[in-house]
Amino acid sequence: MEIAELQETLRRTYYQRDARRGRDATFRWMTEEVGELARALRHGERDELAHEFSDVLAWLTSLANLAGIDLEEAASRYAAGCPKCGASPCACSFER
Amino acid sequence: MEIAELQETLRRTYYQRDARRGRDATFRWMTEEVGELARALRHGERDELAHEFSDVLAWLTSLANLAGIDLEEAASRYAAGCPKCGASPCACSFER
Repeated sequence: MEIAELQETLRRTYYQRDARRGRDATFRWMTEEVGELARALRHGERDELAHEFSDVLAWLTSLANLAGIDLEEAASRYAAGCPKCGASPCACSFER
Repeated sequence: MEIAELQETLRRTYYQRDARRGRDATFRWMTEEVGELARALRHGERDELAHEFSDVLAWLTSLANLAGIDLEEAASRYAAGCPKCGASPCACSFER
Protein backbone atom coordinates (compact mmCIF):
# COMPACT_ATOMS: atom_id res chain seq x y z
CA MET A 1 0.00 0.00 0.00
CA GLU A 2 1.30 3.43 -0.87
CA ILE A 3 1.55 6.06 1.84
CA ALA A 4 -0.54 8.41 -0.32
CA GLU A 5 -3.21 5.73 -0.68
CA LEU A 6 -3.41 5.24 3.09
CA GLN A 7 -3.67 9.00 3.57
CA GLU A 8 -6.44 9.30 0.97
CA THR A 9 -8.38 6.38 2.46
CA LEU A 10 -8.12 7.89 5.94
CA ARG A 11 -9.20 11.26 4.57
CA ARG A 12 -12.28 9.72 2.99
CA THR A 13 -12.97 7.61 6.08
CA TYR A 14 -12.40 10.10 8.91
CA TYR A 15 -11.73 13.64 7.65
CA GLN A 16 -15.10 15.09 8.65
CA ARG A 17 -14.79 13.69 12.16
CA ASP A 18 -11.10 14.68 12.33
CA ALA A 19 -11.99 18.25 11.31
CA ARG A 20 -14.77 18.52 13.90
CA ARG A 21 -12.43 17.19 16.60
CA GLY A 22 -9.65 19.56 15.49
CA ARG A 23 -5.86 19.41 15.45
CA ASP A 24 -5.23 19.60 19.17
CA ALA A 25 -7.65 16.82 20.10
CA THR A 26 -6.36 14.71 17.21
CA PHE A 27 -2.81 15.22 18.43
CA ARG A 28 -3.95 14.13 21.90
CA TRP A 29 -5.50 10.96 20.45
CA MET A 30 -2.27 10.23 18.61
CA THR A 31 -0.22 10.54 21.80
CA GLU A 32 -2.71 8.29 23.60
CA GLU A 33 -1.96 5.66 20.94
CA VAL A 34 1.78 6.29 21.43
CA GLY A 35 1.17 5.39 25.09
CA GLU A 36 -0.64 2.21 24.07
CA LEU A 37 2.30 1.37 21.81
CA ALA A 38 4.64 1.82 24.79
CA ARG A 39 2.56 -0.66 26.76
CA ALA A 40 2.43 -3.13 23.85
CA LEU A 41 6.25 -2.95 23.59
CA ARG A 42 6.41 -3.93 27.24
CA HIS A 43 3.95 -6.82 26.84
CA GLY A 44 5.53 -7.90 23.58
CA GLU A 45 2.45 -9.66 22.23
CA ARG A 46 2.72 -9.63 18.45
CA ASP A 47 -0.90 -8.96 17.40
CA GLU A 48 -1.24 -6.21 20.00
CA LEU A 49 2.01 -4.62 18.79
CA ALA A 50 0.91 -4.66 15.14
CA HIS A 51 -2.44 -3.18 16.19
CA GLU A 52 -0.82 -0.30 18.10
CA PHE A 53 1.71 0.45 15.37
CA SER A 54 -1.16 0.73 12.87
CA ASP A 55 -3.13 3.00 15.20
CA VAL A 56 -0.23 5.41 15.72
CA LEU A 57 0.32 5.49 11.96
CA ALA A 58 -3.40 6.09 11.34
CA TRP A 59 -3.57 8.99 13.82
CA LEU A 60 -0.35 10.51 12.47
CA THR A 61 -1.89 10.34 9.01
CA SER A 62 -5.18 11.90 10.20
CA LEU A 63 -3.14 14.70 11.76
CA ALA A 64 -1.27 15.18 8.46
CA ASN A 65 -4.65 15.47 6.73
CA LEU A 66 -5.69 18.20 9.16
CA ALA A 67 -2.35 20.01 8.78
CA GLY A 68 -2.52 19.86 4.98
CA ILE A 69 0.68 17.83 4.73
CA ASP A 70 1.22 15.20 2.03
CA LEU A 71 2.82 12.42 4.08
CA GLU A 72 4.26 10.59 1.09
CA GLU A 73 5.89 13.76 -0.23
CA ALA A 74 7.23 14.47 3.28
CA ALA A 75 8.55 10.89 3.58
CA SER A 76 10.40 11.23 0.28
CA ARG A 77 13.27 12.75 2.31
CA TYR A 78 13.97 9.14 3.31
CA ALA A 79 13.29 7.50 -0.06
CA ALA A 80 16.96 7.07 -0.98
CA GLY A 81 18.28 6.48 2.54
CA CYS A 82 19.76 9.00 4.95
CA PRO A 83 18.47 12.55 4.26
CA LYS A 84 21.82 13.98 5.41
CA CYS A 85 24.52 11.89 3.71
CA GLY A 86 22.29 10.30 1.06
CA ALA A 87 23.73 6.85 1.76
CA SER A 88 22.02 3.57 2.66
CA PRO A 89 23.34 2.30 5.00
CA CYS A 90 23.83 5.74 6.47
CA ALA A 91 27.50 6.74 6.43
CA CYS A 92 27.20 9.72 8.77
CA SER A 93 25.95 10.00 12.34
CA PHE A 94 22.62 11.64 11.51
CA GLU A 95 19.91 10.86 14.06
CA ARG A 96 17.04 12.38 12.02
CA MET B 1 6.17 5.10 -2.12
CA GLU B 2 4.90 1.94 -0.53
CA ILE B 3 4.97 1.63 3.25
CA ALA B 4 6.94 -1.62 2.91
CA GLU B 5 9.48 0.15 0.70
CA LEU B 6 10.00 2.90 3.27
CA GLN B 7 10.41 0.29 6.01
CA GLU B 8 12.95 -1.67 3.95
CA THR B 9 14.92 1.47 3.09
CA LEU B 10 15.02 2.50 6.74
CA ARG B 11 16.07 -1.00 7.73
CA ARG B 12 18.96 -0.89 5.26
CA THR B 13 19.84 2.67 6.26
CA TYR B 14 19.59 2.56 10.05
CA TYR B 15 18.93 -0.94 11.39
CA GLN B 16 22.42 -1.54 12.79
CA ARG B 17 22.37 1.77 14.61
CA ASP B 18 18.74 1.23 15.70
CA ALA B 19 19.65 -2.20 17.11
CA ARG B 20 22.64 -0.84 19.03
CA ARG B 21 20.51 1.96 20.47
CA GLY B 22 17.71 -0.47 21.34
CA ARG B 23 13.94 -0.29 21.55
CA ASP B 24 13.63 1.94 24.58
CA ALA B 25 16.04 4.61 23.32
CA THR B 26 14.44 4.43 19.87
CA PHE B 27 11.03 4.93 21.46
CA ARG B 28 12.42 7.94 23.32
CA TRP B 29 13.75 9.42 20.06
CA MET B 30 10.34 8.91 18.48
CA THR B 31 8.60 10.76 21.29
CA GLU B 32 11.15 13.56 21.04
CA GLU B 33 10.09 13.94 17.41
CA VAL B 34 6.43 13.86 18.48
CA GLY B 35 7.32 16.87 20.66
CA GLU B 36 8.94 18.63 17.70
CA LEU B 37 5.79 17.93 15.70
CA ALA B 38 3.73 19.54 18.49
CA ARG B 39 5.89 22.67 18.24
CA ALA B 40 5.69 22.70 14.43
CA LEU B 41 1.88 22.52 14.67
CA ARG B 42 2.00 25.61 16.87
CA HIS B 43 4.33 27.51 14.52
CA GLY B 44 2.43 26.33 11.46
CA GLU B 45 5.33 26.75 9.04
CA ARG B 46 4.75 24.32 6.17
CA ASP B 47 8.28 23.03 5.49
CA GLU B 48 8.93 22.54 9.20
CA LEU B 49 5.64 20.64 9.55
CA ALA B 50 6.42 18.32 6.63
CA HIS B 51 9.89 17.73 8.10
CA GLU B 52 8.54 16.77 11.53
CA PHE B 53 5.80 14.52 10.12
CA SER B 54 8.45 12.65 8.13
CA ASP B 55 10.69 12.32 11.19
CA VAL B 56 7.92 10.87 13.37
CA LEU B 57 7.05 8.44 10.57
CA ALA B 58 10.72 7.46 10.16
CA TRP B 59 11.20 6.80 13.89
CA LEU B 60 7.92 4.88 14.09
CA THR B 61 9.16 2.76 11.19
CA SER B 62 12.58 2.20 12.82
CA LEU B 63 10.76 1.10 15.96
CA ALA B 64 8.63 -1.31 13.90
CA ASN B 65 11.86 -2.74 12.46
CA LEU B 66 13.19 -3.33 15.96
CA ALA B 67 9.89 -4.88 17.10
CA GLY B 68 9.74 -7.17 14.06
CA ILE B 69 6.45 -5.66 12.86
CA ASP B 70 5.61 -5.33 9.18
CA LEU B 71 4.10 -1.83 9.13
CA GLU B 72 2.35 -2.28 5.78
CA GLU B 73 0.71 -5.49 6.92
CA ALA B 74 -0.29 -3.78 10.19
CA ALA B 75 -1.70 -0.78 8.26
CA SER B 76 -3.82 -3.08 6.09
CA ARG B 77 -6.47 -2.87 8.86
CA TYR B 78 -7.19 0.57 7.41
CA ALA B 79 -6.85 -0.32 3.72
CA ALA B 80 -10.59 -0.45 3.04
CA GLY B 81 -11.62 2.26 5.50
CA CYS B 82 -12.80 1.90 9.08
CA PRO B 83 -11.49 -1.33 10.69
CA LYS B 84 -14.68 -1.59 12.77
CA CYS B 85 -17.56 -0.96 10.37
CA GLY B 86 -15.61 -1.47 7.13
CA ALA B 87 -17.11 1.66 5.60
CA SER B 88 -15.41 4.71 4.07
CA PRO B 89 -16.57 7.22 5.17
CA CYS B 90 -16.84 5.51 8.53
CA ALA B 91 -20.46 4.83 9.44
CA CYS B 92 -19.88 4.02 13.10
CA SER B 93 -18.31 5.99 15.91
CA PHE B 94 -15.02 4.11 16.04
CA GLU B 95 -12.13 6.24 17.28
CA ARG B 96 -9.39 3.72 16.41
